[in-house]
Amino acid sequence: MTYLERAELAVKDPSNFEKVLPEVVPLLRGAAGCHGVRVLRGVEEPTAYLLLLEWESVSAHVDFTKTEAFRNFVGLVREHFSGPSTMHHFEEVARLP
Amino acid sequence: MTYLERAELAVKDPSNFEKVLPEVVPLLRGAAGCHGVRVLRGVEEPTAYLLLLEWESVSAHVDFTKTEAFRNFVGLVREHFSGPSTMHHFEEVARLP
Repeated sequence: MTYLERAELAVKDPSNFEKVLPEVVPLLRGAAGCHGVRVLRGVEEPTAYLLLLEWESVSAHVDFTKTEAFRNFVGLVREHFSGPSTMHHFEEVARLP
Repeated sequence: MTYLERAELAVKDPSNFEKVLPEVVPLLRGAAGCHGVRVLRGVEEPTAYLLLLEWESVSAHVDFTKTEAFRNFVGLVREHFSGPSTMHHFEEVARLP
């Protein structure tokens, strides 16, 4: 069972934001209990990004937010945000890969 | 390159909605150009569902909405909705599985 974290980010400049991803994505992927990271850009709204992280539990994600790695992550992305971000967790109930 | 379709659904009764998923998910997965289907239930809001579909192109998804299979899909899920759904497409820009 994995839990999906969905963060929705609004950024000022997509190409500037994407330049930090090679540093940001391994930082997130390296978190204890994190099993996968995807970053996606909106087709209809190209300044809207979706961050999808697979966590072994919601508490693994909560624990990560207390780490130095999380503060580094925030430090790398914060200046690119144009507004507030939202974050929710989801539990998978069906899948056909 | 795949495109992610994200549909956000609000349902009246989660357990009733989930009973139709064994029929709904293969119907979506069988669409031409569809490479994966996930259905996830909100942790913070258990009547909020996320439908994540991988498409080889946005037009493959648009073409699917004109098929009999899509009408069958809508027929199976519509009565479970408690409000309007939203749908957006996203293009992957980074991934670490």
